[in-house]
Amino acid sequence: MERIYLDNNATTKIDPEVLNVMMPLLSEKYGNPNSLHTFGTEVHPDMVKALDQLYAGINASDNSDIIINSCATEGNNTVLKGIYFDIILKSDKKHLITTQIEHPAVSHTADFLESLGVTVTRLPVSESGLITPESLKEAIVKDKTALVSVMWANNETGLINPIKELAQIAHENGALFHTDAVQAIGKISVDVQDTNVDFLTFSAHKFHGPKGVGGLYIKDPIKLTPLFHGGEHMGGKRAGTINVAGMVGMGKAMELATTKNAIEYENSVVRRLRDKLEDAIISLDDTIVIGSREDRTPNTILASFKGIEGEAFLWDLNQNGIAASTGSACSSEDLEPDPTFVAMSIDSDLAHTGLRFSLSRFTTEEEIDRAIEVIKSSVKRLREISSTYVKGE
Amino acid sequence: MERIYLDNNATTKIDPEVLNVMMPLLSEKYGNPNSLHTFGTEVHPDMVKALDQLYAGINASDNSDIIINSCATEGNNTVLKGIYFDIILKSDKKHLITTQIEHPAVSHTADFLESLGVTVTRLPVSESGLITPESLKEAIVKDKTALVSVMWANNETGLINPIKELAQIAHENGALFHTDAVQAIGKISVDVQDTNVDFLTFSAHKFHGPKGVGGLYIKDPIKLTPLFHGGEHMGGKRAGTINVAGMVGMGKAMELATTKNAIEYENSVVRRLRDKLEDAIISLDDTIVIGSREDRTPNTILASFKGIEGEAFLWDLNQNGIAASTGSACSSEDLEPDPTFVAMSIDSDLAHTGLRFSLSRFTTEEEIDRAIEVIKSSVKRLREISSTYVKGE
Repeated sequence: MERIYLDNNATTKIDPEVLNVMMPLLSEKYGNPNSLHTFGTEVHPDMVKALDQLYAGINASDNSDIIINSCATEGNNTVLKGIYFDIILKSDKKHLITTQIEHPAVSHTADFLESLGVTVTRLPVSESGLITPESLKEAIVKDKTALVSVMWANNETGLINPIKELAQIAHENGALFHTDAVQAIGKISVDVQDTNVDFLTFSAHKFHGPKGVGGLYIKDPIKLTPLFHGGEHMGGKRAGTINVAGMVGMGKAMELATTKNAIEYENSVVRRLRDKLEDAIISLDDTIVIGSREDRTPNTILASFKGIEGEAFLWDLNQNGIAASTGSACSSEDLEPDPTFVAMSIDSDLAHTGLRFSLSRFTTEEEIDRAIEVIKSSVKRLREISSTYVKGE
Repeated sequence: MERIYLDNNATTKIDPEVLNVMMPLLSEKYGNPNSLHTFGTEVHPDMVKALDQLYAGINASDNSDIIINSCATEGNNTVLKGIYFDIILKSDKKHLITTQIEHPAVSHTADFLESLGVTVTRLPVSESGLITPESLKEAIVKDKTALVSVMWANNETGLINPIKELAQIAHENGALFHTDAVQAIGKISVDVQDTNVDFLTFSAHKFHGPKGVGGLYIKDPIKLTPLFHGGEHMGGKRAGTINVAGMVGMGKAMELATTKNAIEYENSVVRRLRDKLEDAIISLDDTIVIGSREDRTPNTILASFKGIEGEAFLWDLNQNGIAASTGSACSSEDLEPDPTFVAMSIDSDLAHTGLRFSLSRFTTEEEIDRAIEVIKSSVKRLREISSTYVKGE
């Protein structure tokens, strides 16, 4: 049985072209880039190229920083804790705004800072599942809010927040703006200059790069207390020997994911396949999909199937070769209802049955056709044995 | 010209066997280990095997933690900052002891904590270049010192500190003990139970594993505030999607580096080659090697050549195919005199000319023979054009 991978919001396969550029750095070109001899200096052109690819991918200006780190969790921790040491501890700005739908890398870091005495406001989503400019305007306190952190696209629903407007409101009130763009890169256009964000985080493994490497954009001229103190790597902004192979792979992955053609492909071919799968799901009885299609990244569906428990469904699909998710892979162990379901007033029967399907540019029409057949028969089978399912109730 | 790599304390080449076990994780086995479907679960056996290899490599008990992270810099920051939040902020223990010879990942983190109000004592080295139990006994304050952090082996000199005795003194005075073992793993036997250390950090790329992955040993039952807050990866001890390929590579690298045979090879064959190179260096006029041979890791030489500036020597050697270092690759940009030179009362003429040669199990006798010839002719040439060199003065 050929397995079908529909869990690309959890992680993605490394593009063979990406692995290809990494291989020399994993074998003969093994020097430490901080070394002054040829083994060290010969990797510099590869690193410069990777940086160029990263800058181009998010349209960063040359003056700004892109810190190479180990993942978006590191980037998110760096921003929130850096702001804590640089602004919250040192000024009257002691207020942090984030949302109820952030990845734990932001929300748990905010919890930690709250335990240190920081005032944290967590914005709810609207009935459309989005963070609205109005809710930020209500929550922000002029010259008291240090940072606003709102994810660009949600990992569970794919819903895309109005980052440009939110960043503008933050700035009008003297706050800095951070966005976790992990789920946006490669799916929609991400432009740090157009949106005017101050900090942006991403992880290579979410856009067909390797695990263990990520990036943090910091707008010029902002400086942040580093999360890693140590050597003078990256001008002291992030100590630790650079993962050169990972960095070079991430650069290539960024390039492949963010060309005009790539974004167009994602929003035409991938979107059409996603819509085909989504149409098939909502054609079943008693199913819903969270969020308007137009508001979402083109690859994501978060669906609920009344009477079917998410974990059981996941198991059944897996037995039949389909890999999906009950939500974020980062919280598969966590059975809390999704705050988006709650905010959107979706009844609790459905809120515990969410299943996420996330496609990629490697997803084929044949895979989607087979997934539709498997989902249909699985829904039928599981509802037949369900003790709670009554059609249309 | 075949290039000869004698800078293995900066970084090492990935062992082909290590890359071999990594490759499936960089290609077809790309699942997120937190996912519940087969793509996620199929990597678990590889991860369990890697953990077993890591536990065996440092003789950790099953109850203790080994956190997989991105490098020893991360591990060192995790320990020092974790202790800050968990002990220094919450108890009367507000004193931190470290040394004047730590890697910047420890020393700069200690500087940062000092800026937050922590009292930091930095132990000097003895005339032998070592951190002595006596100096720790003098500096430690019973029930006031929270943590003692002393590197196992120094990156520049290879000098090995008496970790077991130092850990015992820390414990007798109510302090915890951390050691940065980056330069010890694979060179000498490292046993966390025998030495009874509380925390130990290492980086895969220093023992023929990949860059971008490291480990942090935490003795049972100690818990540390994580440096990365976020998802429930590793039970919340270190959030962020695990670098599975890196972890598996590090496990294999640890196994290869720490078998009885590997340590014996390092202390017989590598040591003999190192001694051959060292004998040739000290047979030249006006050269010294820092530290007693018996006190050092078997692969390292830090030598000074009177009248020759380190950077010029490095450049000349590199032109002739030999890769060495003027000291730590992490501080090649930094021209401060080495504190070990200072402590050992080596005159400042020599303190600015230190050159480090560090071998590995891949170093061959032919390479050492050629290195000796190149060093001899380079020393002759550079002294002939030196404005400061006067023989024997």
